[in-house]
Amino acid sequence: MTRPQTTQLLEGKKSAAAIREEAAAMVQELRAAGTVPGLALVLATADESAAWYTRAIARAGEKVGIDVRVERLADDASADVVRSALQRLSADDTVHGIILQTPLPPGVDGVEVAIAIAPEKDVDGGNPVSIGRLTAGLPAFAPATAAGVMRILDDHGVELAGRRVVVVGRSLVVGKPAAMLLLARDATVTICHSRTRDLAARTSEAEVLVAAVGRPRMIGAEHVGAGAVVIDVGTTPDEDGNLVGDVDAEAVTGHAGALTPVPGGVGPVTTALLLLNTVTAAARAAG
Amino acid sequence: MTRPQTTQLLEGKKSAAAIREEAAAMVQELRAAGTVPGLALVLATADESAAWYTRAIARAGEKVGIDVRVERLADDASADVVRSALQRLSADDTVHGIILQTPLPPGVDGVEVAIAIAPEKDVDGGNPVSIGRLTAGLPAFAPATAAGVMRILDDHGVELAGRRVVVVGRSLVVGKPAAMLLLARDATVTICHSRTRDLAARTSEAEVLVAAVGRPRMIGAEHVGAGAVVIDVGTTPDEDGNLVGDVDAEAVTGHAGALTPVPGGVGPVTTALLLLNTVTAAARAAG
Repeated sequence: MTRPQTTQLLEGKKSAAAIREEAAAMVQELRAAGTVPGLALVLATADESAAWYTRAIARAGEKVGIDVRVERLADDASADVVRSALQRLSADDTVHGIILQTPLPPGVDGVEVAIAIAPEKDVDGGNPVSIGRLTAGLPAFAPATAAGVMRILDDHGVELAGRRVVVVGRSLVVGKPAAMLLLARDATVTICHSRTRDLAARTSEAEVLVAAVGRPRMIGAEHVGAGAVVIDVGTTPDEDGNLVGDVDAEAVTGHAGALTPVPGGVGPVTTALLLLNTVTAAARAAG
Repeated sequence: MTRPQTTQLLEGKKSAAAIREEAAAMVQELRAAGTVPGLALVLATADESAAWYTRAIARAGEKVGIDVRVERLADDASADVVRSALQRLSADDTVHGIILQTPLPPGVDGVEVAIAIAPEKDVDGGNPVSIGRLTAGLPAFAPATAAGVMRILDDHGVELAGRRVVVVGRSLVVGKPAAMLLLARDATVTICHSRTRDLAARTSEAEVLVAAVGRPRMIGAEHVGAGAVVIDVGTTPDEDGNLVGDVDAEAVTGHAGALTPVPGGVGPVTTALLLLNTVTAAARAAG
C-alpha cells in the first residue's frame, strides 16, 4: 500500500453497447436473408433475481431483434424434465441459443443436465463439451461471464501476456474458464479459492486480479497490490435488491490501478455477449 | 537455497506395480465372466521412440492379460484416415481402450481427431469431451500422465490441500489437466509457461512443483524452493536414446525435499494407469 493513486473505473457500458450494436447489425442481415435468430431461456426456479435477470436478457434480446422465448419449468422439475426441455430446444430449428438459468431445482446438477444442450447452441458455454473445446483451444462458446471478463480487459487495453493474473474462485462458469482464457492469452495464471492459505498474500501479488467468488466485499485493500487492475465479477443482491460485488470498492479505490464497478462492469458486457453469441450461432446455422 | 538437505526419491515403480496388479486381478475376473479387455494403440508415425513406447505398452498390457492390438497407419495419413480408424475402433465391441500415439502426421491436429475417440474408450483422456468432463468434476478418464502425477503424489503422501502448487507447461495432455486435478484437490495452482516472466521467481514459490515442458534439464536449483516436492514429467530422449527429464536432478538434489527420477518416476505410473483405465473401461462395458 503505497501512496494513493487514481483508480480508473473500467465501465462495461460502452463495451456492452458496441457488442449489442454488432449483434443488431448481424440480426438485420440475417432477417433480410430469412433467418430470425432465436434464444430460449430455460427457467426452473421461483427465485426472484433469476426471474429479474431473465426478463432483462429477454428485453435486451428483443431490442436487438432476437426472438426470445422463456421456457418456464416447475421449480421442482426433475433432472429428466430439465434435460428433455433442453433436448427439445436443441432439436428446434427456430432456436439458435439456449441458456439454462440458475438456480436449478434441488437435486438437479447443472452440469449433468447442460450436457443436453447442443454445443452449437450452448451460447453460455455450460455444456462440459464447450469447456473441453475451450480448454483445447477449439472453437466453442465460452461461459459468457468469463468472456465478459476478457472483453472488458481488452476494451480497456489491459496487457495480459507474461503478466501475473490471479483468479479468485474456481467455478465452472467463471473461475476455471476465465483461467483458461487468460492462459490462452499468455498470462501466468494462479487460481485461488476457499481453501487457499493466506489469500491476501496470493492476491496482492497479482498485476490483474479477477474476483469471482460471490461473497460481498470480501476483497479489501489488503488483497490488492498497489496499482493492480481489479475485475469484480461478483453480483450478490443485498436486502434492498441492489447488486454488491466481491470487491470492497471503497477500500480499494485510491489503491488499485483500475476497478470494474458493480453494477455496470462485467455484468452488462456478459448480457450483451449472450446476445452476440446467439446471433453468431444463428449465422452459423444459416450459413 | 538454504543448507543442504536429503532429497527423497519419489520412485514410480512400486506404484506402477500396484496398479498393474490391480489391473491383472480385474482382468482375471473379467475373463472369467467372458470379457477380454481390448486395447487399441493407433500409430501413424515412423518415429522410433513412439514405436518403442508403443511396444512397451503392448508388452505391459499383454502381461496383465489385455488383448493389445497395434493399428498402424501411414506416417502421412490424412486427418480423415486417422479419424475413421478411431471411429471404427470406437464402434468395435472387442476394443475397450483407444490410445492415439504422437507424433501425428504433418497437418493432423491431435485434438481435432481425438474427438473421434468414444469418450468411454478414451483411456488417455485425449478427447476434449474428457477434458471438459474432468474440468466439470464429472467422471472421465484424465490424460494418463496428469493422472500419473497425482498418483505419485498420493502414493508418497504429499499433502495438496491449501498448498502452493506450480505447474510449468500448459499442454492439453499434462499441464492443463494436471492443474484441474490439483485444483480439485484444493491446491492453490499457478500455471507457468514459455511466456511467464521471471520463471525462477514463480517456480521457487512452489511447495509442489510439476515440470511438464519437455525441455531437458531446464529446471535448475534456482527454480526450486528449498524443501519443495518436484515432479518431473519430462522425458526427452537424448542422442543415446536415454530419457532426460525437465529437471536438472544433480543441481536440485540436496536442495529439493523430494524429486521423481527420470526414468522411473512418473513414466511407469502413466503406462500402468493406461492399462488400468482400459480394464476399467472393459468392466464398465461388461457391467
